[in-house]
Amino acid sequence: MKTTAHGRHGPAHVPIAQVGLDGVIAGVTRLSEVEGEAGRLTIAGFPAEVLAPRASFEETLHLLWEDRLPTSAELDRLNRDLREKREPGELVRTLLVEAAARGAEPMDALRLGVAALAIDSPGREAIVASMPVMLANFWRCRTGRSWLDAPHGGTHAECFLELLFDRVPEPAERRALDTYWNTVADHGMNASTFTARVIASTGSDQVAAVEGALGALKGPLHGGAPGPALATLQALRAQGLETDGGDLDARTRAHVREVVVSGERMMGFGHRVYRVRDPRADILGAEATRLLGESDPLWRDARVFETAVLEVLAELKPDRAIHTNVEFYTALLLHGLGLDARLFSSVFALARVGGWLGHFDEQTKNGRLLRPRAAYRGARDRAWVPIAERVGMSGSADPASPPAP
Amino acid sequence: MKTTAHGRHGPAHVPIAQVGLDGVIAGVTRLSEVEGEAGRLTIAGFPAEVLAPRASFEETLHLLWEDRLPTSAELDRLNRDLREKREPGELVRTLLVEAAARGAEPMDALRLGVAALAIDSPGREAIVASMPVMLANFWRCRTGRSWLDAPHGGTHAECFLELLFDRVPEPAERRALDTYWNTVADHGMNASTFTARVIASTGSDQVAAVEGALGALKGPLHGGAPGPALATLQALRAQGLETDGGDLDARTRAHVREVVVSGERMMGFGHRVYRVRDPRADILGAEATRLLGESDPLWRDARVFETAVLEVLAELKPDRAIHTNVEFYTALLLHGLGLDARLFSSVFALARVGGWLGHFDEQTKNGRLLRPRAAYRGARDRAWVPIAERVGMSGSADPASPPAP
Repeated sequence: MKTTAHGRHGPAHVPIAQVGLDGVIAGVTRLSEVEGEAGRLTIAGFPAEVLAPRASFEETLHLLWEDRLPTSAELDRLNRDLREKREPGELVRTLLVEAAARGAEPMDALRLGVAALAIDSPGREAIVASMPVMLANFWRCRTGRSWLDAPHGGTHAECFLELLFDRVPEPAERRALDTYWNTVADHGMNASTFTARVIASTGSDQVAAVEGALGALKGPLHGGAPGPALATLQALRAQGLETDGGDLDARTRAHVREVVVSGERMMGFGHRVYRVRDPRADILGAEATRLLGESDPLWRDARVFETAVLEVLAELKPDRAIHTNVEFYTALLLHGLGLDARLFSSVFALARVGGWLGHFDEQTKNGRLLRPRAAYRGARDRAWVPIAERVGMSGSADPASPPAP
Repeated sequence: MKTTAHGRHGPAHVPIAQVGLDGVIAGVTRLSEVEGEAGRLTIAGFPAEVLAPRASFEETLHLLWEDRLPTSAELDRLNRDLREKREPGELVRTLLVEAAARGAEPMDALRLGVAALAIDSPGREAIVASMPVMLANFWRCRTGRSWLDAPHGGTHAECFLELLFDRVPEPAERRALDTYWNTVADHGMNASTFTARVIASTGSDQVAAVEGALGALKGPLHGGAPGPALATLQALRAQGLETDGGDLDARTRAHVREVVVSGERMMGFGHRVYRVRDPRADILGAEATRLLGESDPLWRDARVFETAVLEVLAELKPDRAIHTNVEFYTALLLHGLGLDARLFSSVFALARVGGWLGHFDEQTKNGRLLRPRAAYRGARDRAWVPIAERVGMSGSADPASPPAP
């Protein structure tokens, strides 16, 4: 019996590829399709490059949730709804002011704020609408400013930028943030989206799903953290300013060689799924160009840096096609908007929550409980040993836990 | 190209069984093995029936986390560590007092309390130690009492029961709660454990994983909610008290027939995985008998009820072997301890968190990013339509979102 059980579950019978669930289909969606080989991203039926620069983020929310762009009346209704549901309430405010005073990380603060929403069982509009208000006000408090009531007017993006910067944003800034949010609002079955779907599959609620997804998004292996991509460029620029303002191109090439020789990765370049250029890089590159203008020193240095990195990588790794990924241009765009790099991941979450809630809906309506199994590789039939007779790890034997013969 | 893409991802190529991930291996574990066909549950190498009635919950924690029972010195250290880390802090207290005032559900309150721990980046001992303190004090406030400091002494179970009931528990009560917690501390790759592992697989932290798992546990499809199993018995008993105190056996049999005829399920009977008797039912049944004593009226009625239900189910569904599941005896045991049925799921979480944190450790040390894929079944190559030209769902066509040809 024991041999049978071991045979059923034992190492030899575990297809190892499944342990990361690579290639395993865990859900059906109409929300987005990532075609890595072709370098194509479809968001609710639209090529990302068609949707992202044209839609407002509110239109994208409607598209994700209703599978079509809103009419003018529907968009007015959604805008009004979002505006009315911005205020997260007194409890969230108390919490996040305290979290800021204690130096919490933005991702933890945002998750905490969302957790506190659960008490009022909010709908998806209230979850989405309140997140930028929570994040911006948390950051105000973290940077020595006071909590502000959310503005009554303006778009989702305008509300966030106004709270963050104490001024009404320019149209180009609103456009840039909308384009960014549209571009990253959904991206197949990534780990945070998958988390939201697993939680949804138990019949749990939207707050729980978003909270879990935020927890997964926090992990460094999730990807989508654009901070480090820009940090290298900034460091190389700073070197130039400190010394003779010299050649960024030459410094970049030397740096890439060092990185490759030491066996590390150039942050901002290469992607696990996309084998050709990440389509999101083009969208955000174009938007960054519009926002900053081609005469902007950072924009110009970014092009010098990108060209140099790609040329050296092509030379040193001729067998691998490495392209600029979404992180690099995300970083450039968000930095161009004046956002602190420590906020990048949580600003990403403000967009992805639209996708998470779309997946919640799909999973709740059409999905089944997501309940895989584990392969057991532990002991069996251990015998109980009274505590006085147990020996610890330093002992020569461990009679406290004899494995089954 | 489009046809190819559709062919790769289209409906015909989705193995539907995978959409619930049934039978798909999503991780390797030494923490527990559920053998449904044999009716066997192994917890970290021990048959559950060997471990559960003998170990303290603290011993089980050590077993789950270290893969062996603790020596006397190790157990002392763990006990001390847990005792010192019980207090969740002022912020959690403020939060949960407010959550109680607003009538929050215990599962939401517990998740909120855990979310607030994130600010201090607690270790697993602090997470586990503070959860009973948070839950018991939240419930005190929900039931019109005041928040208490955690006791400095006593075991994990004693601390929880003392805060909840304002008295030091009897040894039999501590034993009963330890046996329950040991029995349900881990149970293969259930949906909440899986959630914890998905979050862990991104490199996120323990608080995020526990928070996500609590969110999944809240869902009614997760299972393990013992409330409804007892509710039926209580309702049938109450009927007897209201009328002539008459025959519980007859009333039960009539009720089961009604339930089966209406196509519904008898809560507390039958299990998705176990084909024979759930081994946990025996462990908890024996513990309930010890705690309540065979002369206890509820215990006697429970046996009458169980016997009647099983006999009628066997008669009406002769082709299916339906057994008493863990929920029925969990409910009897927790009710016997004086716990309100609204607390059952969250008291379950106080045990399962030991398993979640064990899985967090395994996934972090040996796992890979859990990143399955989705099958896309949406439109492609939609064309942008200016807002003035869009028609809503009531229109005869929907030019806002024409699907690809």
